[in-house]
This record gives sequence, C-alpha cells and structure tokens, in this order.
Amino acid sequence: MTLHLIPVSLGDVTSSVWLPQAAQELAAQLTVYIAENAKTARAFLKEVGTQSALQDITIHTLSRDSSTEDIRRWLQSVPTGTDIGLVSEAGCPAVADPGALVVAQAHLLGIRVIPWTGPSSIMLGLMASGLDGQRFAFHGYASVKGEERDTQLRAWENYSHKHKQTQILIETPYRNEAMFQALVHTLRDTTRLCIARSLTCEDEWIKTLTIAQWRKVPAPDLARKPSLFLYLAA
Amino acid sequence: MTLHLIPVSLGDVTSSVWLPQAAQELAAQLTVYIAENAKTARAFLKEVGTQSALQDITIHTLSRDSSTEDIRRWLQSVPTGTDIGLVSEAGCPAVADPGALVVAQAHLLGIRVIPWTGPSSIMLGLMASGLDGQRFAFHGYASVKGEERDTQLRAWENYSHKHKQTQILIETPYRNEAMFQALVHTLRDTTRLCIARSLTCEDEWIKTLTIAQWRKVPAPDLARKPSLFLYLAA
Repeated sequence: MTLHLIPVSLGDVTSSVWLPQAAQELAAQLTVYIAENAKTARAFLKEVGTQSALQDITIHTLSRDSSTEDIRRWLQSVPTGTDIGLVSEAGCPAVADPGALVVAQAHLLGIRVIPWTGPSSIMLGLMASGLDGQRFAFHGYASVKGEERDTQLRAWENYSHKHKQTQILIETPYRNEAMFQALVHTLRDTTRLCIARSLTCEDEWIKTLTIAQWRKVPAPDLARKPSLFLYLAA
Repeated sequence: MTLHLIPVSLGDVTSSVWLPQAAQELAAQLTVYIAENAKTARAFLKEVGTQSALQDITIHTLSRDSSTEDIRRWLQSVPTGTDIGLVSEAGCPAVADPGALVVAQAHLLGIRVIPWTGPSSIMLGLMASGLDGQRFAFHGYASVKGEERDTQLRAWENYSHKHKQTQILIETPYRNEAMFQALVHTLRDTTRLCIARSLTCEDEWIKTLTIAQWRKVPAPDLARKPSLFLYLAA
C-alpha cells in the first residue's frame, strides 16, 4: 500500500494548468481518499474524472481535531493492494494544513509515501517575486493583534536583513487589505515587498516594489482574494 | 511581452510526471529562453517537443556573474509580442538559483511574470516528510566547515524548538553522507529527521525517524544522489 499526496487547484481553473497528466491519471484510479474538505475533494474528483462512480469512492474527512486513532484506522482499514490518496482544500497536502498528521502516521506504520507535483502558492509566489529564493521562511499567519503583528513583521525583517532570507506569509482573505497597510507602514523604505494575488487564476496579479514605492501607488485590490505576501530587507 | 517561469525535471523522468500539459504546450511554443545551463535547457526543450527546430531557439545563458545589463538586454531585445521563458538547471526557476535576478529585472521593467506549476524538491520533500508544514525555513547549503556547520544545525534546531518551524537544507551530493552523520551526531534524540532522496525519480526514497531511531539503523545510501534534509525539534 502507498499513500499518494495529491495537490488540488488553487482556484476555479482546469486541471491541465496545474496537474501533471500522470498525477491526474493516478488520482482518477484511487477509491479511498483522506481529505480536509469532502466537498472540495468531490469537486477535485469530478475534475480529474474518476474511473469509479463518485458514490463508490470513500472520503474520510480530516480536521485539526482528528485523533491519531482515527487516522491509523483509515490507513489500516484499506484492503491489501489498495492505495490511498491525501488531498488538501487547496494546493499541496500536508503544507499549511493538517495533512502532515496523516503523513506522520504513515511513516510510523511503515507505509510508503509518494508526493506528486502540483500547485503551491508559496513556491509560485516565491518564483515570481524576484526576491532571493536561496533562503526563505514561510510563517503561515501573523498574529491578529495589531501590535503583536507589527512586532513580528519587524522581527522577520531584521532576520531577513541579517540572513538574506525572504519572509513569506498569508492572511485570511478578508484581512488582506489590513495586512497590506500593516506591511507598508511597518517595514523599512528599502525593503522589497511582493504581492502575489490569485495565483494560477484568471485574475492572477503579481508585483514587487520597495516599500517606499508601494506607499506612492494606489493600494492593490486584494479584497477576498487569496494573496501571498513576501518581503526581503535590503 | 511576458516572462514565463517554467520548471524542469529533477531527474531522468518523462515530463507527464512533473509538468502540467498547459505548461508543456506553452514551453513548446517559445523561441527565446534564458537558462542557467544551455545543455540541460536543450534536453528540456527536446522533452517538451518544441514547435521550432532547436537551432532556431535562442538560449541566453545565465550565471551568478551575469550583469544587470546583460539581463536587461536579453529582456529588451525580444521582438514585440514575443514571450520569453526562464528555466533552471533542475526544478523551479528563481528558487535556489540565480533566476531571481532575471525576475527582479522583469519587475523593474514592468514586464509581466507568470509562474508555472512544476516540481520543487523543497515542496515535495516537505509534503512527504510528515513534519509541520505550517511554518518552515529553507536554508540552502550549510557551511562546509565542520564546526561552523554543527553550530548552524544546532541554532536552527533551537529555533525549530521555539517556533515549531521545520528546517530544510540541501547538500552537494558527494557530501550527503557526511551531512547525514553530522545531523545524526549533532541534533537531539527526540528531533524528527526526514531524508528525501531522488524525489520524482525511480529510486525515490523518503523516510522520517527520530534522531535516536536513525542512530540504530544502517545509514541510507545517499552517495551522489540529490537529497533533501528536513528536521523538526520536539
């Protein structure tokens, strides 16, 4: 048995843009999945065109509260010779989502794990930013408390200055514009900031400017659109 | 004009495993490339099956020593309406390679940048490690000096312990086995270490154990095989 880690789309875009054909064919064959969200998992399965009818495919729903026992039972209840798929709600499973719990249990049970290539907003944003990709850190979400958040942004900027490390963070879409303002008002003039919005989607928009330059242009339209924030201190 | 960032393979594997069809079709159409290595770029172009004859495709070779003037000339000498591709020696361009210089110039010149999905050993290794993907840092290469390297490994382990951040590094393939020994002898017993070897290739091998467990098993065969090292302190 093998646990296949299969990326899903970052938005409403046809799979030929973001999934290699071999991964699509593999995903179409599997009949057991562990998924962060059963609804988006079914949308993914429709997109890849499963060989079995959708109602014959088992989908176990994974959350941050899933117990180790649940996960072990899902992995161990699969008939011999049957492989299993792990999918996230968006992008690569087990990166910035609870999927790592499943992969960790697979390693403990001696189950082979195969990661498949697919879209990662972190990697796409980093490539497109023009910032240094030789050293970088992904922090997930910053604090929601204003003062604490600004302290974090500055600490990461100092680290970036010292180690030439690009800093990467995400935000809940409805807070994107507040995050943009926080970055522009907290970071140094010479720090380069990249905004990568709606990656792989029709309204994809990516721009890198210094903080001084961002202060002089109209704020980008990020409302309710998945965005990635990347910065590198000079 | 658009600058397309196109990933290439991590090893000798057919492109349907690691490149979405839309990216392959786009790459086949382009007639101007900037590449870290012209030889591997030509191998990539053969694999995707270019529409023009190979000798009619312009390949500008990029190195760490390429000047800003060279890069601007390449970007600006392209006829109106012609797009240009950027490829790395392996994996995603502008991540852990000099491609970021080209992307940075494109942003300065107001040229649109489109990143395409493809294989990233960092992302594949992180997905398959089962370590925390919510926060992680990629450090590139550690120091080649033994004592300095061990100090770095410990500093990253302390940071990992404090911030639950997965640490990721690479090594020159012929030094992989020395790096494995350094990790196993420097890190704490309870730290989890993942070794991800030959990702996407036939001899792909991925294993996560605690340092205490790694000390009790035979050292993996990593000689001259691209490997990624990931660890997370308990």
